[in-house]
Amino acid sequence: MTQAPDSGPGRFPVRYELLKTCRQSGARLGRLHTPHGCFDTPTFMPVGTQGTVKGISTDELQEMGAGILLSNTYHLWMRPGSDLVREAGGLHRFMGWTGAILTDSGGFQVFSLGELNRVREEGVEFRSHIDGSRHLLTPEVSMSVQADLGADIVMAFDECTPWPSDEATTRQSLERTTRWLERCVASQANPGSQALFGIVQGGTFEALRQQSARDIVSFDLPGYAIGGLSVGEPGELMYRMLDCTVPLLPADRPRYLMGVGTPDYLVEAAIRGIDLYDCVLPTRIGRNGSVLTSRGRIIVRDARYARDFDPIDPECGCPACRNHSRAYIRHLFKAGEMLGLRLASLHNLWYLMKLGADIRQAIREDRLLDFRDEYFERTGYHRRRPHCDSPAVPV
Amino acid sequence: MTQAPDSGPGRFPVRYELLKTCRQSGARLGRLHTPHGCFDTPTFMPVGTQGTVKGISTDELQEMGAGILLSNTYHLWMRPGSDLVREAGGLHRFMGWTGAILTDSGGFQVFSLGELNRVREEGVEFRSHIDGSRHLLTPEVSMSVQADLGADIVMAFDECTPWPSDEATTRQSLERTTRWLERCVASQANPGSQALFGIVQGGTFEALRQQSARDIVSFDLPGYAIGGLSVGEPGELMYRMLDCTVPLLPADRPRYLMGVGTPDYLVEAAIRGIDLYDCVLPTRIGRNGSVLTSRGRIIVRDARYARDFDPIDPECGCPACRNHSRAYIRHLFKAGEMLGLRLASLHNLWYLMKLGADIRQAIREDRLLDFRDEYFERTGYHRRRPHCDSPAVPV
Repeated sequence: MTQAPDSGPGRFPVRYELLKTCRQSGARLGRLHTPHGCFDTPTFMPVGTQGTVKGISTDELQEMGAGILLSNTYHLWMRPGSDLVREAGGLHRFMGWTGAILTDSGGFQVFSLGELNRVREEGVEFRSHIDGSRHLLTPEVSMSVQADLGADIVMAFDECTPWPSDEATTRQSLERTTRWLERCVASQANPGSQALFGIVQGGTFEALRQQSARDIVSFDLPGYAIGGLSVGEPGELMYRMLDCTVPLLPADRPRYLMGVGTPDYLVEAAIRGIDLYDCVLPTRIGRNGSVLTSRGRIIVRDARYARDFDPIDPECGCPACRNHSRAYIRHLFKAGEMLGLRLASLHNLWYLMKLGADIRQAIREDRLLDFRDEYFERTGYHRRRPHCDSPAVPV
Repeated sequence: MTQAPDSGPGRFPVRYELLKTCRQSGARLGRLHTPHGCFDTPTFMPVGTQGTVKGISTDELQEMGAGILLSNTYHLWMRPGSDLVREAGGLHRFMGWTGAILTDSGGFQVFSLGELNRVREEGVEFRSHIDGSRHLLTPEVSMSVQADLGADIVMAFDECTPWPSDEATTRQSLERTTRWLERCVASQANPGSQALFGIVQGGTFEALRQQSARDIVSFDLPGYAIGGLSVGEPGELMYRMLDCTVPLLPADRPRYLMGVGTPDYLVEAAIRGIDLYDCVLPTRIGRNGSVLTSRGRIIVRDARYARDFDPIDPECGCPACRNHSRAYIRHLFKAGEMLGLRLASLHNLWYLMKLGADIRQAIREDRLLDFRDEYFERTGYHRRRPHCDSPAVPV
């Protein structure tokens, strides 16, 4: 079908190019073109909450092959302030990152603040976690702050339904999300340079997921996200929600599964047609001395590695594994040395970037289901999922 | 004069090559050949107390041009243990550093522990700062632990006289240092692969400095250090001690001024014929948000830099200055982000490595005195010396 140039996805600042579909799984290999470069998908997006991926330099992010970072609107709005970031020339220049950036809406953080917030149709009233000052986050404010930050992809301001929630609550919530999306679209300042992604909600109810997907897709946006999953529900339930939602999303737009970062979820979501994911997992578990390896997760600060002079993962090519042993990294943790946290975080990020590359290769070879089985067998990640607590304000 | 191969400095594992003497100042440009590469002097040695330069990777140390690191025997002996480091293949392999390493004797740390130690002729009895366990550090133990660590340069176990001390105490102390050196030489395990440097003491008494220098030089060692300076005495007094000591040291051996790292001291010591120095200053002040620049020191976490989008030092080529602004690094400090400490430390290390290169260039051009005057005029470092508190156990 031929589309007029002003109606096809070519009119958006961020454009998805489908390169190949895996004949075994239906997963898709794609390329995302953004104002700050293009990169292949599925891919993991490292999280730089406060304008920095904790402990990692932008040179290191580039070296590991990251094409896009996620940063948190709420945190940057509160500190240093979005006006300051705008004055610096936007978040790319402020943090010295030449690749693409996605900012979230700030909604997830203000909802997570719990008793400090009050949700109304207008928006969410909350108190800053830094100085207790009162603020009102609305779709319009989120769009304005995200315009200041200047990311390539900006997220719609949505209501994130907690798990479990009953059907009536979930329906009200997803309908508000749709009304808020309308306000986001109406107030977006730079649609020519920033791609607005809508967010599908609907909790764990298939019919509501489908209703939300149809509502959100009707806005004809440059990309779509699936929110409200990986918030505590069983993995099988999440997979079921993906199975009933993804087929309703247009094939020529990128699909982003929010907050997902365990290795098994990355593989399963790719199989279900997801292109992008993000999570603080690699840096958060890294700071606790926990590292992902090709044979499963290990706690490298444990006493059993005191005299283990092998790298964290002999199959890994990251700088931590190229230059250092488990025993050395354990020593750094025991001695309270910053380099330990840094090397463990760096390794975990490399690990997930490499897993993305392996998934893409398996799609190219039409064998992503085989890859999943071998990978799960080898690592055990589907049985013992690396846990990642997500406190409201992960400073 | 021709020397037999077994009596000249060529028989040592570490050899100093004099390349040029500055006609204006008498400072020397040299090259130090070690079992782990050679590098030009004068040069600053970054300090990796616990087998890591705090927050900095070995790749970054290589990129800034560091040819040699210093590490602390006391810390590594206590944790992870020198037997473990030996099992790892020595400190170079343990920490993943292919350049040269110098280890201190452990003496300075156990003396600094104050009331926890007891000094006897045999050695120093002390309690570990980690678990309170009792240990005895003697010349023989220091040599044995340093043999395990496997550094290219090992330091004699000396008694470090505090400032101020009276003449009688200082004399007793330096004579004990000489007796301990005899025991170090007698017990050194690997003189063919590890170069033992003797340490001149003598406090702030010219006659005692000269006596100590003659005593220590009589051992015909591969290199000599000057200890017990930069411990609180006025700068002028330190310069006077260098003036009366250095001429007594042989011209064909390297000279190391211990614990010196402020920019003015680096320049003044080079003028007086010093080749090597070390200090925790760059990483310690960096962790506090203090950075050295070509126009003097600034506290980059101060509010005045909140909207300063210039690099820390526009004349600096380090990764922090290439990629980031003062405003960004200030934000990282205010937000408690590890990357702030890392970038400030990295910058300060680059700064002192670059100062070493500038000193060497000024020697080549026979204008080190002019360089000093211009440098002090521009930076003010001789008037406002960056302060560096040195607690006993800088963990």
